[in-house]
Amino acid sequence: MPNSESVPSLLNSFTDKWSPRLVVAINDHHVKVAKIDGEFIWHAHPNSDELFYLLEGKLTIELEGHDDVAMQVGDMFVVPKGVRHRPVAEEASIMMIEHESTINTGDETSSDRTIQVKDARRQY
Amino acid sequence: MPNSESVPSLLNSFTDKWSPRLVVAINDHHVKVAKIDGEFIWHAHPNSDELFYLLEGKLTIELEGHDDVAMQVGDMFVVPKGVRHRPVAEEASIMMIEHESTINTGDETSSDRTIQVKDARRQY
Repeated sequence: MPNSESVPSLLNSFTDKWSPRLVVAINDHHVKVAKIDGEFIWHAHPNSDELFYLLEGKLTIELEGHDDVAMQVGDMFVVPKGVRHRPVAEEASIMMIEHESTINTGDETSSDRTIQVKDARRQY
Repeated sequence: MPNSESVPSLLNSFTDKWSPRLVVAINDHHVKVAKIDGEFIWHAHPNSDELFYLLEGKLTIELEGHDDVAMQVGDMFVVPKGVRHRPVAEEASIMMIEHESTINTGDETSSDRTIQVKDARRQY
């Protein structure tokens, strides 16, 4: 049985932006953390809701057809599946939860922002 | 489209122990917070992994057939489905994630510790 994973230690272990790290898997879902800054691309996830939990910094989730969601540290927001959105951050650290099959750029699969999640789980 | 939910504000809104509050739903999973102190009962969840994320205080997850998992603030641990476990806490605030059908006392359905999750989401 593995030990617990430290989210603060994991966040201290990397500096690159928009490159999610897998913290743990639960059922068919992945819990990830990422550091993000500036604007991402507009995209949607057709097959999964996407949870954002703001750990540090500032984050606004822009949503097609809806008001922006301005998040404070400690806030949590779920983008429903299929809703086009764009995160805009200021030196933010975030936790994300979504189905394990979810791609960071969603339906924009040919974007140069598309990136593989790095598995940061400790090996036992 | 709802606004974001503040986890710190939610935690400040109640004091009762072992009574989870629903923060958000994502796909078929629930994200909950709870305040816990002392020993819970031994139980297992036959149909869902269970994620614990320690926000405040101290938490040990005792696991049948395995070493205890001693958690620090910021630590995350997933109890695999079917594994009997018992949380033992000292004035802890935790986030939990599990399948929406999950009962807090798992297979110990007749326990006097069995409780319905309170939906703490703001209404719009």
